Amino acid sequence: MPTHNSISRDADQRVRRSKETVLRTTFELLTETGLDGISIDEIARRSGVAKTTIYRHWQTRSDLVIDACSHITAEQEAPDTGSFEGDLTVLLTNLAELLRTARWSSVLPSIVDAVERDPSLAEIHSRIQRGHAAPLRTIIDRAVRMGEAPQNTDRSAMVAALVGPLFYRRWFSREPLDEVFVKAIVRNITGEREPSAALSAVAPIAAPQDQ
Amino acid sequence: MPTHNSISRDADQRVRRSKETVLRTTFELLTETGLDGISIDEIARRSGVAKTTIYRHWQTRSDLVIDACSHITAEQEAPDTGSFEGDLTVLLTNLAELLRTARWSSVLPSIVDAVERDPSLAEIHSRIQRGHAAPLRTIIDRAVRMGEAPQNTDRSAMVAALVGPLFYRRWFSREPLDEVFVKAIVRNITGEREPSAALSAVAPIAAPQDQ
Repeated sequence: MPTHNSISRDADQRVRRSKETVLRTTFELLTETGLDGISIDEIARRSGVAKTTIYRHWQTRSDLVIDACSHITAEQEAPDTGSFEGDLTVLLTNLAELLRTARWSSVLPSIVDAVERDPSLAEIHSRIQRGHAAPLRTIIDRAVRMGEAPQNTDRSAMVAALVGPLFYRRWFSREPLDEVFVKAIVRNITGEREPSAALSAVAPIAAPQDQ
Repeated sequence: MPTHNSISRDADQRVRRSKETVLRTTFELLTETGLDGISIDEIARRSGVAKTTIYRHWQTRSDLVIDACSHITAEQEAPDTGSFEGDLTVLLTNLAELLRTARWSSVLPSIVDAVERDPSLAEIHSRIQRGHAAPLRTIIDRAVRMGEAPQNTDRSAMVAALVGPLFYRRWFSREPLDEVFVKAIVRNITGEREPSAALSAVAPIAAPQDQ
């Protein structure tokens, strides 16, 4: 005979399962239609979870979308390879892979667009951005501590100089996010510029192998 | 008494005016609602130009949107200050200003999002991107010719390293697009890294001044 505790455990699991279903459905719908296609009606219809249940867990559509997007931020960890250049290469290679393949990479433009017109969605946005920037900031902080980057490093500009080019290729120029590109962007930040390699000095981004 | 020619000239002007009205209305609607809010019906209603007239000039909604967006590409010219760093600084300062103020900067995310889901809109997209990149490529080509950038400069990666960080701040991190940031991004590409000027040299974004 089920005890009171086991009944309550079953109920908890049912709640958890239905929440997961709703979150998964929301995220799927986001990838298919963008934020404009998201309504609680449609999510209820698709997920089979009652609207009243959905509203019990999330007060507004924004709350639900924020929650559905929150795992976007959990996909990256700060690597620790022993060098600044190594760490950046691993992290940006990973980010490039995610930008090429992860479903959130087709969701993000929809959120960027929606935030442009509806500031109430800013929380979704800054959550995603903090998620992208956090492991990079960890790496930069470590490099500053270890003397691999200067004390007065402008961390925020450095994040933009590393992530920006990858985002640009993914959503704007739509050019390949390949290894050559990632290495050029990393070397642009970390590259030693010795007098003997003057040309590459000017052109962090250029390959110095022909000099 | 009007001649046949002056009648035809009047007709030409009427056509030109109504085309301009439709294009202006389309662009206004884009800034307000994004691409999802654009329909020929709505444009006809707002502009007062008949749908049949609109369809005479533009076969599809995409054709019209492409045309309405086409002036986005005409806003920048390649400066010629006499140095690579000077040219880049002028161009990126100008781009930062446009990103902060121009109405197309709130339209672009909507187009990026739409292209993600509808490849038939790719022409709008690549037209806008070519427009952004063209003056930058002119400057880079000149720098290569003048020996200010190496012969083997990866032009496309360099464009991404210059434009990407600005786009990142405008639409993703939403941090200030100010002079300090623009200079950091430019110096990151052109900066000579002399031992004597270690801090400022590297510091835009990174720096080996401790080496």
